[in-house]
Amino acid sequence: MKNISILGSTGSIGTQTLEIVKKNSKEFKIAGLTVNNNIELLKKQILEFKPEAVAVMDEEKADELKKSVDINVYSGIEGIIKIATLDGADTVVNSLVGSVGVRPTIEAIKSKKNIALANKETLVTAGQIVMEEARKNDVNLMPIDSEHSAIFQCLNKEIYNNKNSINNLKNETKINQNNDINNIVNKIIITASGGPFRNYSKRQLENVTIQDALKHPTWNMGDKITIDSATLMNKGFEVVEAHWLYGIDYKNIEVVIHPQSIIHSMVEFKDNSTLAQLSLPNMKIPIQYALSYPKRFSSNSKKLNLLEVKNLSFDKPNLELFPCLKYAYYAGKLGGTMPAVLNAANEVAVNSFLNKKIKFNDIPIIIKKLIDSHTVLENPNLNQILEVDKKTKEETENIIENKAIINN
Amino acid sequence: MKNISILGSTGSIGTQTLEIVKKNSKEFKIAGLTVNNNIELLKKQILEFKPEAVAVMDEEKADELKKSVDINVYSGIEGIIKIATLDGADTVVNSLVGSVGVRPTIEAIKSKKNIALANKETLVTAGQIVMEEARKNDVNLMPIDSEHSAIFQCLNKEIYNNKNSINNLKNETKINQNNDINNIVNKIIITASGGPFRNYSKRQLENVTIQDALKHPTWNMGDKITIDSATLMNKGFEVVEAHWLYGIDYKNIEVVIHPQSIIHSMVEFKDNSTLAQLSLPNMKIPIQYALSYPKRFSSNSKKLNLLEVKNLSFDKPNLELFPCLKYAYYAGKLGGTMPAVLNAANEVAVNSFLNKKIKFNDIPIIIKKLIDSHTVLENPNLNQILEVDKKTKEETENIIENKAIINN
Repeated sequence: MKNISILGSTGSIGTQTLEIVKKNSKEFKIAGLTVNNNIELLKKQILEFKPEAVAVMDEEKADELKKSVDINVYSGIEGIIKIATLDGADTVVNSLVGSVGVRPTIEAIKSKKNIALANKETLVTAGQIVMEEARKNDVNLMPIDSEHSAIFQCLNKEIYNNKNSINNLKNETKINQNNDINNIVNKIIITASGGPFRNYSKRQLENVTIQDALKHPTWNMGDKITIDSATLMNKGFEVVEAHWLYGIDYKNIEVVIHPQSIIHSMVEFKDNSTLAQLSLPNMKIPIQYALSYPKRFSSNSKKLNLLEVKNLSFDKPNLELFPCLKYAYYAGKLGGTMPAVLNAANEVAVNSFLNKKIKFNDIPIIIKKLIDSHTVLENPNLNQILEVDKKTKEETENIIENKAIINN
Repeated sequence: MKNISILGSTGSIGTQTLEIVKKNSKEFKIAGLTVNNNIELLKKQILEFKPEAVAVMDEEKADELKKSVDINVYSGIEGIIKIATLDGADTVVNSLVGSVGVRPTIEAIKSKKNIALANKETLVTAGQIVMEEARKNDVNLMPIDSEHSAIFQCLNKEIYNNKNSINNLKNETKINQNNDINNIVNKIIITASGGPFRNYSKRQLENVTIQDALKHPTWNMGDKITIDSATLMNKGFEVVEAHWLYGIDYKNIEVVIHPQSIIHSMVEFKDNSTLAQLSLPNMKIPIQYALSYPKRFSSNSKKLNLLEVKNLSFDKPNLELFPCLKYAYYAGKLGGTMPAVLNAANEVAVNSFLNKKIKFNDIPIIIKKLIDSHTVLENPNLNQILEVDKKTKEETENIIENKAIINN
């Protein structure tokens, strides 16, 4: 029996995680839940899953909730960290959105919780620190992303001999030096649907609306990640995450457009044999695997039928039209505080696009501006990263408010 | 260092195995070689690889060879068994063609040799006996077939916890009962190129020549297996082999036409996640993996580039046009001596087609005749199987000589 806390329980990943917990009630139990402000849905979840405590980011909403439930209700980021470190939990599902997810992840790891990670910004912003803490505390860090779950399933025990922990990867006292992933694989191939604008011209891209951008061709996800998918920044984040999760050099990570989203990623081993993981696009498969690993539980999700799909196609990403992917490689390779800048600028820009303050094509322009003006701090500690994150967000907001990027 | 004997060293698999041994001379050494009658090529191989002994099936050719080399030269099937059981070898690559491969495999297993198996007829004819012997003698039985190698790579350690032996699968004293493959996977999907006549009409199929049939669209292989690919009997054999190698029920084995031969097979696990193994069609990858497992060695084979391949497509096999696949499922499910009949009738029929005694479309007609007239013997021992093999071959030859199937 795993006792699970979910950070972000009313979002897309959070609600799907709860469905999996419900279906596998002999295997999983809920310890704690956190939400941003949707206390109406949280109330229903409390009734159904009986957590020992919850947290609400919004202080007022937290106070409101306290009046109607008789369990501990915490608030703010400290409240979320409280849930991330609950004694009664052994596993924390982090499905927060944005760099707010970084501290709860690290605090959960320090409390020896295994992590099922959907919050991309955790590894993009503070990958080195998070992985070091995971190794130090000997906890599992399982990816929930379909792409990283695919890579994990392809690598599986080829690398992690007798260990069910991916974060042992770089711990040379524990594993054979020869098991360095860069000696075993030629490359990792991360697939991308290409987003809704895959076949757009530059002209067409200039006039896309929020509604256009929120129509993801194959996945049904939250707003932020859907826009990130449309700009290919989501794919760029996944490149940085893969670098940290698997210790793979950037030069050995390739992105391939695969519009059907059936192959979720691949690993080419050094004997030129490639393993791929496939399924219909359904986040429940990677979520459940992150929780059931090393076992697999049965699933009532729709089965892949390749005779119905008929064709799987592959294409190059267009880096001219979607430069965010290029910027992610650039920031990742530079390292230090640069990925935090990439992420912070993107977070504000995407939010501004969703609030109709900027156009779709402004997103990469803004991000480039912030990256270009940042001087990298190498081997930053967590406070320095969070400081850069905060400062970059303020600068990005200033630029957007002053319309400094419009009419570039 | 592995000491390897190759049964069938001048054929397609044999010569490619020798190239791999040559390239990895620190890892592999040749102990013994056997050939059917090509002693000219064998002489060159003896000079280059310095085996301690060789065998030639053809007695006269064996005598001829003895005059020109100063190592032990054995002859006939007993000579081949001698090489299969050499003290100096730990691994036997069986790349013989036809049911002649059965006894050498079993004798090699009894001598505690690990087996790298390319001879399909071994498992089709005597799967139960071979797998039982492999378990009893605790030897590895690694598939060389690209399809079974793909399945093995997808299953890998999901099933074979801490074991590098696939034949431990059904040994309940060694592995957890829960690890029965039918509890872990939904199905195995074996891919088939569909052969050169994939898109032919029944009329077109009636007039195909040997030359047409020997032009395999994606693989360059020996004559027998190329014809078997064109009739889909090869795929039928692979279904029976997969059943024995992995202990998977026939109802959980599916065949899908995949003309590009890039995905070599797939495994759908019970959580509806599918793993697939991909590469350009190149037998050296599965041969090398069978010898290097659990390690992978680097390869100078051409790398798969999905951006060049662009499309992977999938289609249903046409069982009306290619009934051999249907007959293989039928014979496999019936079990006992029936698969031996399937194989024996096919061996003679294909040989007769290659000798222009029958037409392409006669092959399945002949096989059906033999299957229909056979009364299954359940749980046969090896002698009974070999007896059925011999008798079926005689009957098939009689039918063909008497032209009993022509003008059906």
